[in-house]
Amino acid sequence: MNDAYARLQARFTRIATLGEASAVLGWDSATMMPAGGGAARGDQLAVLAGLSHEMLTAPAMADDLDAAQPPADPWHEANLGLMRHAHRRATAVPADLVEAQSRANAACEQVWRGARANADFAAVRPQLTEVVKLVREQAAALSPALNLSPYDALMDGYQRGIGAQDVAPIFADYAKFLHEALPRAEEMQARRGDAIPPEGPFPPAATEALCRRLSRAAGLEDAHSRLDRSTHPFCGGTPTDVRITTRYYEHDFAPSVMGVLHETGHALYERGLPQSFARQPVGEAAGMAAHESQSLIVEMQACRSDAYLGWLGGQLLQTYGGAADRYAPENLGRLTRHIARGFIRVDADEMTYPAHVILRFQLEQALIAGDLAVADLPGAWNDGLQALLGITPPDDAKGVLQDIHWYDGAIGYFPSYTLGAMAAAQLMAAARKAAPGLDAALAQGDLSVLVGWLRTNVHAKGSLLGFNDLLLAATGKPLDPTDFLAHIQARYLTA
Amino acid sequence: MNDAYARLQARFTRIATLGEASAVLGWDSATMMPAGGGAARGDQLAVLAGLSHEMLTAPAMADDLDAAQPPADPWHEANLGLMRHAHRRATAVPADLVEAQSRANAACEQVWRGARANADFAAVRPQLTEVVKLVREQAAALSPALNLSPYDALMDGYQRGIGAQDVAPIFADYAKFLHEALPRAEEMQARRGDAIPPEGPFPPAATEALCRRLSRAAGLEDAHSRLDRSTHPFCGGTPTDVRITTRYYEHDFAPSVMGVLHETGHALYERGLPQSFARQPVGEAAGMAAHESQSLIVEMQACRSDAYLGWLGGQLLQTYGGAADRYAPENLGRLTRHIARGFIRVDADEMTYPAHVILRFQLEQALIAGDLAVADLPGAWNDGLQALLGITPPDDAKGVLQDIHWYDGAIGYFPSYTLGAMAAAQLMAAARKAAPGLDAALAQGDLSVLVGWLRTNVHAKGSLLGFNDLLLAATGKPLDPTDFLAHIQARYLTA
Repeated sequence: MNDAYARLQARFTRIATLGEASAVLGWDSATMMPAGGGAARGDQLAVLAGLSHEMLTAPAMADDLDAAQPPADPWHEANLGLMRHAHRRATAVPADLVEAQSRANAACEQVWRGARANADFAAVRPQLTEVVKLVREQAAALSPALNLSPYDALMDGYQRGIGAQDVAPIFADYAKFLHEALPRAEEMQARRGDAIPPEGPFPPAATEALCRRLSRAAGLEDAHSRLDRSTHPFCGGTPTDVRITTRYYEHDFAPSVMGVLHETGHALYERGLPQSFARQPVGEAAGMAAHESQSLIVEMQACRSDAYLGWLGGQLLQTYGGAADRYAPENLGRLTRHIARGFIRVDADEMTYPAHVILRFQLEQALIAGDLAVADLPGAWNDGLQALLGITPPDDAKGVLQDIHWYDGAIGYFPSYTLGAMAAAQLMAAARKAAPGLDAALAQGDLSVLVGWLRTNVHAKGSLLGFNDLLLAATGKPLDPTDFLAHIQARYLTA
Repeated sequence: MNDAYARLQARFTRIATLGEASAVLGWDSATMMPAGGGAARGDQLAVLAGLSHEMLTAPAMADDLDAAQPPADPWHEANLGLMRHAHRRATAVPADLVEAQSRANAACEQVWRGARANADFAAVRPQLTEVVKLVREQAAALSPALNLSPYDALMDGYQRGIGAQDVAPIFADYAKFLHEALPRAEEMQARRGDAIPPEGPFPPAATEALCRRLSRAAGLEDAHSRLDRSTHPFCGGTPTDVRITTRYYEHDFAPSVMGVLHETGHALYERGLPQSFARQPVGEAAGMAAHESQSLIVEMQACRSDAYLGWLGGQLLQTYGGAADRYAPENLGRLTRHIARGFIRVDADEMTYPAHVILRFQLEQALIAGDLAVADLPGAWNDGLQALLGITPPDDAKGVLQDIHWYDGAIGYFPSYTLGAMAAAQLMAAARKAAPGLDAALAQGDLSVLVGWLRTNVHAKGSLLGFNDLLLAATGKPLDPTDFLAHIQARYLTA
């Protein structure tokens, strides 16, 4: 190891530490901050982001990246590679384009809120046109620097190690499968009959206490985490101080309980990252799809399994009282594993969710390629959803306006959701094979067998490997939708 | 105005914005953070402090400070003066001394916690000796740069515009006054008889809701503030997002209620700072003594007045129920204005509090002058307290070990408490003269007359004036203890 590499480590530690400060401030904005603090908070986050960017693009950084010789060790070699990658991304985009995007995204997001409320796409069309134009410029600038196609260069910002060419055939196959399988699944569901809805009210304080217990039982330690309330559930904070949030409803416990288990999956990933590479690029989570695989393996694979629901029913009955049959395993299964063709992605079940992602993946590729104009987006959206799910949104609020992502300049992110869901199924299959006691433990509400396996095979790997290589090392194959299909088959297509 | 001054304004805005980020992170540490986040938080705050220090001492900063020409306006001229002053303070102390102090203070504070728990001064003597040695070096470095005596150079770090020579005669007179007046006050108090203690329990949630109402009624807006819980009450956050804290006791409401009113005074000061100079040195609060004057004018002058207590009694009765005579004005007065010779500064009443400060002022001046060795500190403490209040602590935990300040390297801060108390009385007398409806409003729980006057005469002045000049402009005279003595006379020495 030479001095240049040591200096780089120190600088990246500093950048990551600033990132931690921003993460805590971001959490505070969403959970604690009085409204009047918003403008100042925006300035605080902008100054921190500006300083990080200055450090990352400083001339001394470039010199050291050229001269660096890490110890002959795959971790340090990967670390230097990620440092160079981050520097390449940061320097490829001209400063005035970064600024223009920041302004355009903020302006568009602002207008979008009103446009969505009024189901009025035309109101935000000019702003979205500008945002898309600038993202295309960004993609064009990143593409040669990263030696990736423009769209893949955007995807790379969210998930390294997988591109549109890997994803497209998998998504196409799933669309085909869904076309045939969804009617069958609906028919079987109809034959099983509806769930008996549990009787509320579900006092938020009781649900919150239950969520804390469930999260703790899943392995999240009080000394290193918090559970708070926010409008949109998220996992934030830092690896030694993870902050998860949810919201509570008097009339329903399920979204809060399943939401907290989902965020607990994210939090456990952060908690399990390799401490010896803390604050180094290689010590970070492997990307957004990898992160989503960890939330979904906990929420969808483990906690919506028959085994776990059997245990959870007892906890629910103890928390809320009432008729016991509401919380019996079969009823809980019908309740938490109900499929439905819907317009809204965030409300979708796991079988139809990929259709929402596939639609966005198709449209955003076309937008970046210049094959689709923003003005044609609502029509393309409605046609696409009709083709995928056989339904058409009654208005654009339930269609093209529903998600913030594009209006905030985030293009290339959507595939991560479904890649995460498929990876979760693939990892679960491998974990079940490697650790036969896994389901017996889930039936006791105990996730430690699963989480122990994930810690070794995913969490502790940090960013050593890209998405496909991480799956290869953990499961013996790169991303393979077979396990997800088998999971859907077993859960929704088996009598 | 030239470019150099414009660049300075931008840089100081950035430094202040980083300071805001640190303030929110500091608040979070004390209120929200799980214990396991402590180490990372320390790193985050250290990185932010390091970046601020780098910006403040950068060569370009020195060049611009030399070349700057502000607009011909007292605010901008004062702003440039304060920029130069901050730069002078930051560059006067060598970086290795700053680092040595940071390490020594942290180590000493750590050992002090155990030493205080065991009432064992000898355990922390080596660490305190090192801390004092380094503070003396710091004072020696600051002294020529600021053209102040070494002790005044330390005081200047907490409160600009007043020095030991101004303070010493005022403190000496008060010590003499107390010697004669305290026995008289005690005798009168004994003659009045004890307060009937209100019956608890006082449910923390009820007290918290009451505190919120009182703070709001005093003028602190929900949109720009929060009230939370912490072990040690404080006011933190930023001017548009002020965060106050307190703690609650089942057996007593008074410390929480009076504590929140105290912190509300601090918070109102921050809220009233001049927005047109936000994030500039001249837009900040005028110093620690000025800040304490604002907390004490609300807590001690306004909210322990007969007028306010008359109104508060109704609020308490409504909150807790029980026998009404407990919350009658005279009983509340006896309860919240009880004087007692005690060992502990933070528990002291307003009449004996200055004795605790005078003791520390004498001892820390002697420490910095080299006239008192750390080894002789416990004896000097006990002798001093005996001379001032006629009592001797049973052990060092109730004596020299009670306060964190010295063990954390804070020397020159203690006078601010009593300067604030005296300034509060002086400002209250001036406000009463200028706004005759002030007490009638207090009798309705309405602080707006007082706060309105303070906003114009103190808050909106920011750091335009030093401590004595601020008082001169607001009250027609520099710090003058006459009003404080008259206040003590009226409240404790009048039948």
